[in-house]
Order: sequence, then C-alpha cells, then structure tokens
Amino acid sequence: MPRPELLPAVAGLRLVDHHCHGVVPEDLPRPAFEALLTEAGGSSPLGGSLFDTQVGFAVRRWCAPLLDLPRHAEPEEYLARRAELGHAEVTRRLLAAAGLGGLCVDTGYTPRPLLSPAGLARAAGAPAYEIVRLERLAEEVAESGVCAGDFAGRVRERLAELSYAGNGHGRRVGTRHPESGHEGRAGMQHVRSGHPAGLARTGDGRVVGAKSVAAYRAGLALAPERPGHRDLTAAVDRWFSGMRPGVPARLAQEVLHRFLVYAALDLGLPVQFHVGYGDADVHLSRANPVLLTDLLRATAPAGVPIILLHNYPYHREAGYLAQVFPHVFADVSLATHNLGRRAGALLAEVLELAPFGKLLYASDAFGLPELYHLGAVLFRHALSGLLRAGLEEDSWTERDAARIAGMVGSGNARRVYRLPA
Amino acid sequence: MPRPELLPAVAGLRLVDHHCHGVVPEDLPRPAFEALLTEAGGSSPLGGSLFDTQVGFAVRRWCAPLLDLPRHAEPEEYLARRAELGHAEVTRRLLAAAGLGGLCVDTGYTPRPLLSPAGLARAAGAPAYEIVRLERLAEEVAESGVCAGDFAGRVRERLAELSYAGNGHGRRVGTRHPESGHEGRAGMQHVRSGHPAGLARTGDGRVVGAKSVAAYRAGLALAPERPGHRDLTAAVDRWFSGMRPGVPARLAQEVLHRFLVYAALDLGLPVQFHVGYGDADVHLSRANPVLLTDLLRATAPAGVPIILLHNYPYHREAGYLAQVFPHVFADVSLATHNLGRRAGALLAEVLELAPFGKLLYASDAFGLPELYHLGAVLFRHALSGLLRAGLEEDSWTERDAARIAGMVGSGNARRVYRLPA
Amino acid sequence: MPRPELLPAVAGLRLVDHHCHGVVPEDLPRPAFEALLTEAGGSSPLGGSLFDTQVGFAVRRWCAPLLDLPRHAEPEEYLARRAELGHAEVTRRLLAAAGLGGLCVDTGYTPRPLLSPAGLARAAGAPAYEIVRLERLAEEVAESGVCAGDFAGRVRERLAELSYAGNGHGRRVGTRHPESGHEGRAGMQHVRSGHPAGLARTGDGRVVGAKSVAAYRAGLALAPERPGHRDLTAAVDRWFSGMRPGVPARLAQEVLHRFLVYAALDLGLPVQFHVGYGDADVHLSRANPVLLTDLLRATAPAGVPIILLHNYPYHREAGYLAQVFPHVFADVSLATHNLGRRAGALLAEVLELAPFGKLLYASDAFGLPELYHLGAVLFRHALSGLLRAGLEEDSWTERDAARIAGMVGSGNARRVYRLPA
Repeated sequence: MPRPELLPAVAGLRLVDHHCHGVVPEDLPRPAFEALLTEAGGSSPLGGSLFDTQVGFAVRRWCAPLLDLPRHAEPEEYLARRAELGHAEVTRRLLAAAGLGGLCVDTGYTPRPLLSPAGLARAAGAPAYEIVRLERLAEEVAESGVCAGDFAGRVRERLAELSYAGNGHGRRVGTRHPESGHEGRAGMQHVRSGHPAGLARTGDGRVVGAKSVAAYRAGLALAPERPGHRDLTAAVDRWFSGMRPGVPARLAQEVLHRFLVYAALDLGLPVQFHVGYGDADVHLSRANPVLLTDLLRATAPAGVPIILLHNYPYHREAGYLAQVFPHVFADVSLATHNLGRRAGALLAEVLELAPFGKLLYASDAFGLPELYHLGAVLFRHALSGLLRAGLEEDSWTERDAARIAGMVGSGNARRVYRLPA
Repeated sequence: MPRPELLPAVAGLRLVDHHCHGVVPEDLPRPAFEALLTEAGGSSPLGGSLFDTQVGFAVRRWCAPLLDLPRHAEPEEYLARRAELGHAEVTRRLLAAAGLGGLCVDTGYTPRPLLSPAGLARAAGAPAYEIVRLERLAEEVAESGVCAGDFAGRVRERLAELSYAGNGHGRRVGTRHPESGHEGRAGMQHVRSGHPAGLARTGDGRVVGAKSVAAYRAGLALAPERPGHRDLTAAVDRWFSGMRPGVPARLAQEVLHRFLVYAALDLGLPVQFHVGYGDADVHLSRANPVLLTDLLRATAPAGVPIILLHNYPYHREAGYLAQVFPHVFADVSLATHNLGRRAGALLAEVLELAPFGKLLYASDAFGLPELYHLGAVLFRHALSGLLRAGLEEDSWTERDAARIAGMVGSGNARRVYRLPA
Repeated sequence: MPRPELLPAVAGLRLVDHHCHGVVPEDLPRPAFEALLTEAGGSSPLGGSLFDTQVGFAVRRWCAPLLDLPRHAEPEEYLARRAELGHAEVTRRLLAAAGLGGLCVDTGYTPRPLLSPAGLARAAGAPAYEIVRLERLAEEVAESGVCAGDFAGRVRERLAELSYAGNGHGRRVGTRHPESGHEGRAGMQHVRSGHPAGLARTGDGRVVGAKSVAAYRAGLALAPERPGHRDLTAAVDRWFSGMRPGVPARLAQEVLHRFLVYAALDLGLPVQFHVGYGDADVHLSRANPVLLTDLLRATAPAGVPIILLHNYPYHREAGYLAQVFPHVFADVSLATHNLGRRAGALLAEVLELAPFGKLLYASDAFGLPELYHLGAVLFRHALSGLLRAGLEEDSWTERDAARIAGMVGSGNARRVYRLPA
C-alpha cells in the first residue's frame, strides 16, 4: 500500500539532531560520492555500485526532488544535477528540508575539511551546538608536549574550558582530582553527582556533550570504576613512551578511555558512546552495548546522561539498557538512513524496551548533506508510521501520540543536553 | 487497520502460565507502581514516567476497562480507581480476566511479602503449582548450619522431599550419589534418564519444576559435565568459608549452579533457566542462551525438560536451541508484556525455528496483577494474529491453527510439567 | 491478506543455487524424513512431530501439490504418496519445480550416499558445479599416508588440481609457497591478488569454490594473518601425532582452518564459510560472522570473494560485513526454508545493510528434494514481496526492481563464481 501521509504532530516537528558531523564543502565525482554514501570505503567491480543499497535508493527517492529532479532519477542524472547546482546550494536545500530545530555537531572527526557548526547552522536555519570528542582532545593534549605527569590535569582543564566556555559558572573552586587524591592543578570542582544546571546551556557552537570512540579502539568492555592514580599514570607512561615523532598520537587503552569518560561525567557533561555499526575499522564483537553494563551500573548514581549512539544491530540491547538504567539514552542514528525503507522496523525494535522518554533523534550524517535530509525524512516516516499503527490498533490516543512525537523528536534531547526550548 | 477479533480457538484457551511469581498484596502509590511496571528500578526526572513505555500504554489500554474505566485512562485516573477498588479486588479482576487453566509459581524470589500460590489460584480460578528456585533452596540449606561435607546431600534430600511431596512414589531405594561415588546420605535414587511419570504430578501448590538463576550470578556459561566430588567439595568450602554472620548466603559459583541443575535433573524435575532480559542486575553478555549449548548437549540423553525463560533479545537463539535439542523448550515471558503492542513481532521471531511443540506460554508476572493479565491478553493477540496471518496466506488450515493454539497455550506445558489435563 | 502473485521479474528467474548438497536416493519412512526436515536429529515424544514447524507446514503447503495432492495434505498422506511415486520421481518433480539456472554442490559432506552433482543437474535441468570442502580435502590428504612435512604442499597441489581441472590455464609456473619461504613442491603460482579470470570457469561438476567448516570445529575467531611456516608445521605435527589407526582424521585447529582458507584464496578460489545456524553440533557463540572481522580485513586486498553462508540469527551482522568489505558476500540459505512463511522477514533484515550486489541465493538443501524446492519458492516469494512492497511505497521503480531481482537471483552468483551466463 502507498506510504501514508505523515501525522501532523510529526510533520510539524523541528527535530533536534543530537549527533552529526560536518558536510564536505566540495563538488563530488561519483566515486567520492559513493565512498561517503554508506560505511563501505567505496564501490568495487565485485560488489557493484553502492547506489544499489537501501540508502542509495533513498537518495534517488527523497533527495532528487529537492534538486528539481523526478523521484528515482538515475544516479548519473542525480550527480550531474548536483554538480550543476554546486555543493553550497545542495547543502542549503537538503539541510533546510530536514526541518531541524537544533544540531549537536561532533567536531572531532575531520579526515578532510568540513563545514563548521556555524556553517551547518546557517544551512539548516537552526542553532548548532558542539560535541567534543574525548580521544581527540586527549591526543591534542598529548601532542602539545605536556609531560606524562601533567596529562590528566591538562585534559581535565581543557575539557572544563570547553564546557564552561567562558560563561562564568562559578565552579572553579579548587578541589581534589578524584584519581590523584591531591589538590588539582586545574582547580576545577569535579561534579560527582547531579547534572548541573547551567552547564553547557549555551549558544551556537558551544560544547554541550562529549563523545567516546572507545568502541573503535580498546572496545566497550570498560571496567566500571574510575581509574586509580597508579593505573592512570602507568597507562599514560605506556602511551607516551610508544609515541614517535611525526606519527599522530592515537589513544587506544582501556584505562585512558575510561579516564576520559569519568572526566566528562565529573563536569556534568553528557557522554555519547559510539556503539555497534560503523565502517570496516569497527569490530562488532567489541562494540556491543551490553559490554558497557558494569560501567553504566557504576555511573548511574551520578545522574549524568550517557547516550548510546547508532547501536545497530544491537539496538534491542540498547533499548534494554535505556530502560533499566535511569541515565542511559539511545538513538538509532546512522542505521536510520542506511536502512532506507526499513527505518520503521528499526525504530519499532529499539522502542520495544526503551521508554519513549529515552530515545533521541540523530542522523550521524557525515560528509553528504543528503544524509542529514534522509536521516530526518526517514525518521519522520518511521515515527509517524509507528504512531499511526498504534492509533489504528487503539494502542494509544491522538494526544499520547503527539506527546510521544514531541519527546522523541526534540524534548528528550533538550532535556539531556539542557538546550534552550 | 484495527486489531482483529481473536480466533475462536485462541479466545477459548485456558492458558497455562508456566512461570510467574506472587502479587504484592498492597495498594501502591504511583512511584511504587511504576517501580514494578518494567525492569527499571523506578521512574526518574531524567527519563520521565514509566507509563510512557509499551507496557505502560498497554496497562491503560487493556487493564483500565477491567477497573470500569475507559480505555486509555490517564495514569493518575487509573491509579486512583485502583486504590478505590483495593488491591484484593483488583487482583481478583485482573487474574480472572487472564483466562488461566493453571499457574506454575516461582516462590523463590520474595524481596517483599507476596500472595501465595494458593491465593493466586483462588484469584485466577485455576490450580497453582510450585517451581522451586534452586539457588534459594541451596542458600537455605547453607544457612541452616549444615557442615560443608553434608551440603550436597542435604540439598538433594531437600529437593527430593519437595519434589515427592509425600505422594509416595517408591523411589527412595538407596543408591549412590553420582558426584561422590559412595552411598548417598539421602538414599535417593538418582534418575539419570527418562522423565519419570508420576513425579510431581501433584495437586495445588506442589513442586513441578526447578529454576536456576545462574544467569544472574555466575552466568550461563556452565560446563557440560556433572561436577565431580573434588570440584564440588572445593566450591562448597570456598563458599562456606566466605560467609559472614548476619549476611545472607549468596550462591554464585559456576560449579554450584551446575550441581543444582544436575540435582534437579536427577530427580526428573524439569529445570527452568532465567535467560536474557531482566533488571539492571543482569549482564546480558552472560545471559545469552547459546552459552548453555554444551550443557544442553550433555543433558539431552537424560530426557528431562529444560526450559529457557524470557530469552529476549536472544529469543531467536532460544528458538534454535529448542529445535535442535529434544529436551529444550522456550518461552517469551516477561518480554511479552514489556513489549506491549510488539508482542506479535516477538512471538513470530521465536517461532521461526522453535517447533510449535516446544513453545510455552508464561507471563513471568511479578508484583502487579496487571502483568498477569497483560501477559495473557498480549500473548493471545500475538498468537491469534500469527495464526490468522498464516490462514490468510494459506500457510496452514483452520484445523492446524486450532491444534497449534492448544499446544502452545497449554498442551506443551502440561506435557513438560506432567500437569493433569 | 492472501499472498500476492509473484512479480513477473521474479517468477521468470532461473535461480543459481550457489550452495547445496546431494539428495538421499532412497524412499524414506517417516522418522527418517523428519530427521532430515530440520536441523534436529529427529522428532521426539517430548517435543512432538517436526512436521509441526514452519518448514513442516511449508512442505504440506508447497510440495504436496507437486505430488498431485491437495495443499496441506496431512503428513501421513504426504509420505504415502511420496513412497508411491518413488524417490527418483519425487526428486525430479521437486528439483524441476525449483526453476534453477545452476547449482553449486558442496560434495564434502556425505554421511550417507547422495545423488551426485551430475544426478542433481539432470533432475534440475541445469548445470551443476562443485564446491570443495577444505577440511575434507585436508583430511583425505592426511589419511593418504603423507608425512607431516609434505602435508601443506600436498593440500595445495590437490586443491590446485581440482581447481584447474585440466582446463589448461597456464599458472603452474613454479613459485614459492607463501608460508614456507622456499620453492614450492607443487610448483604452483599462488595468486595473491585479483580474482583470476578463467579459473574454474568450467563445465558440469567442476570446482568453482571452496568451503570452510571452521565454525563447526575451531570456531570462526580465526587470526587474520597467513599462518607462518613454524606455526603451520607445529599444528600439522600436533594433528598427525594425535591420529589413531582406524579413526577418521578430523581437522579442528585454528591454524589449519586458516591455512586452508589462504590456500584456496591463493588460487583465486571463492571461499564459503558456514556461519550461524546448523545442527546441534554447532556452537553459535563460535559461529558469529563478526568473529571473522580481522580475517576479512586482512584478505580484502586480495579481491577474492568470501561468502558467508546461512548466517541466521546473525544475518544482520553478515549484512554489515557484506557492506563494508568489498569482497564479502552473504546468503540466508538453510534459514530460508526452515523459517517457512517468515522467509520474507529474514530477507528484509539481511538486505538492510547488504548491498543488492552482495546477496546470493542458496538453498543449502541436504537430503530431501523438498528443501530444494522450498528454498526456491520461499525465496521467490520473499524477494517478490520485498520488491513489491518497495514499489507500492514508491521506494524504487519497476525497472530497478527487475534489475535487483536479476542480481540477487543469479547475476551476483555468476559474477562471484565466474559461471557462464
């Protein structure tokens, strides 16, 4: 049967995209476009064009009309028109059509120059906030020439500077570093419980959360407890002694990932984890969210949100964690656009156990503005389809459906990241 | 489209709920009600009300009318009416509406006073049987002051007493303890093959099966073989030497869980395993049913049923095990009511591989009488929907559908636990 | 709603069944038939008839009419008519009805006499090719009396003989054994990159690929790198020293499975892996395709196809691997017929991430000709249903749908195995 109209409560949503990346500000030949379309490195003669994927068909279906083409335009035709309009115009059209009310941009993955949060905000017509990538921040500190003994303190200082962003919250009141047991160099107060009001409740481009890519490095089987001084020092020494001049620093030790997570939580900063599906560098057996169970149990009392990103194909596991731990949230970003017309099945599965107050919207779009639009349009259709089916089966009322749409589409994200309404 | 009527063969079923718990015999304020509604410890400001879950909407949809309220009554309205009627009347209405033909009650988890099997039986208008929780029994034996050397014998004795319940089956014929190699203290015959007729074919409240919570403690990766005398003795010594006065005994050693499973199987007692989904104390990576593979292979020749409970999100894995091992059965309890309107998707998935002769119905209801009713009503709709879809697609006949309904809804459970028809 | 007609583009497909086995050339009494119907060893009083499974109902629905019976004939009636027609006629009818354009037969699993590839080809009216089972080949070499030092070379020689099958590709140009570092005994060129044209592009019964059953033995957690000379020698010594006269050789060492995989890839021979679902001898926790991640990463540069077979219940994981690794392909064989009317759900899930150019059709039929037919008919309905739903929702065009059908049904397999069009 034909795809029904969106429910009005969903059509009118200004979605908060709580995890996305920059757009490549260039016109792209076909191989470069295909290389950004899925999590594959590119198309190959053995496997055929990556337009022959769920997301490839979704581009032709949903994006072509925004470029003044008929639905299902052929790939060559689509790319020719894209080049004709130019990347800036294409970005503007696709981001505007996403209907966003806010964006939280992970600025820590830049294998090539990308549009800045401010540029994204202009294209989308919505405020952009920033997510700091913890491992990148730590690597920058490591590369700055700091000595091993000063590393932890410098990371905390830098993270606090980013978080407070000069907005004058009076928290720098000289206290102890939890893992060192002595007066902290940075003199920062380490918030160990509560989700401090005011923190990161900031304007365009300010840091509202942190992200860990432990899943890509040491894996998600992080020990629960805050690393002790001795373990942390040993890990930093090991890391620093393995660095070579001219080779970029790369943090990939369980103790260090864990230190970073605690450093962010201490500042009351919500922490995002990459979970599950990603490119060929991820190993799914180390990226299952259940591996975080002990850490989630240990961090629950602090009350600072932890958000499980992507999760596919472990989105049901993520739904379980979001149900049983009060501070855990989940999304189905990245998978939503990659699954194309199956996005509805995905959303239905994660919402089996995840409370409606615990699911966030995100695109995880990277590189192609198409992915911003597809994330949004496919999520809207998935959410509308789920709510409509529930209405038709008499599982909830119209009023409930509208309330759920508002929570999932933006309310939950605003609460987690303390964004202005 | 609106939810269709139940198939007559499903509507008329008296379901055997082969795994459930007692009901809290108290009126409950909202926080206490929400704390029992899902596997979360309770609602939180960060995540919102737990009524905003699939099971929360199912309560408003399916239970409100039984309390004389309109469908979808608001939570406050629902709880006010519930208090007005009083817990006893609410329990009576909800259990009666479940349409049960029998209940097997796990009496080993009582963090607070609960309605007894007899009380449940009266409310439901159906006989109640008892499932003994193995670890609880072992802990009681340990706390009774037994010495380590007598522990195994006393556990076997106690289990046999419960199983035989004075109904005179002539099995106490002095034989050897399989793990000790010498004359057993209890003098019990250890049934090593076959599923003895007569055992536990008893009346209301009698023990018809045993349950292991290894998944919550040492995990499901149990070694296949019966523990030897030396290993068992060492494990008991380790456990006993770690006990402290005033601290309840807690069994959590692989060898001891395994000993208990074999002790039950030796008596011909069907063994239930908690598998998968549970509260925040479970670690899903230790609760996957495939971890039981070696033990299932080793115990198949004995022919005593092993039943995998809950299983979500590993219910497809459970379906596989139920297909390939002749003595393995599965259910989708707990998840059925937690998934609300998605219960049909769950049932369809477990029945991909599980033979229709290997799936049981259970609610795993605990605390709230609502969960008894929701388990039953959602399972009926799921089963009816699946059978009706098969009929409409011409996958089976009306006669087949009725036969399947009878097997899944009660026949399989009666065969496994040797319940009277 | 009733099952719709097949799309013409699917109805007309001559499917290439890229992984199947022989048929038992005997009339079968009911226990023997049921023992071949699912992955269970047979039916049991505890679990009931295996006709009461998805695949059992599918036999009655889809195969009965081909034996001149009404749809949904009772099992006894079906088996009586089957005996009346005789196994040869039944095989001819069921294989012909499968509508095949080619078969790749794994000839390495023969617990009982089976119809040969040539016999299958005659029954199906389509050419049959051969898949060599690597572990079987190695065991035959081991049993031939070769000394440990000659084992690796003899395996390579034998594999090359089978692959080239006298069709004169000029590759025997004396080069080094990659793992030995000295002049190879067999003097074979080891193709380390590229997927050599011409290799195995042969006629009826010729070897077009290899298969590993590591999942059933040492498990899929294979190290990525080609085994070194020292490790390989040690493993062969260990294996050979454990052999006993009169006991068949059984290869089950990680190093040896890995050696065989590399030996096949060196010859440009596509390698199939058993993954996931199988009989009671498989341990699913060692059969998850994500365990192959490191090996897939290491072998990607060689460009020789690796095909993940079956995959259930890890077919979404397989879809991920097929997307991100250019040389990785997947199927949902075995599960397709076992899931019966749920085959459509399975296909939809694997195609969430797997590019349409990366999915192959296979039945994995073994023993019963019914399974050849069910694999094909259920796959056709699943594929047609998926494509039709996409058309009705406007996710792709009729032309796209026809193109996808051709790729998935035969084009991808012809490209992977270099079969004639």
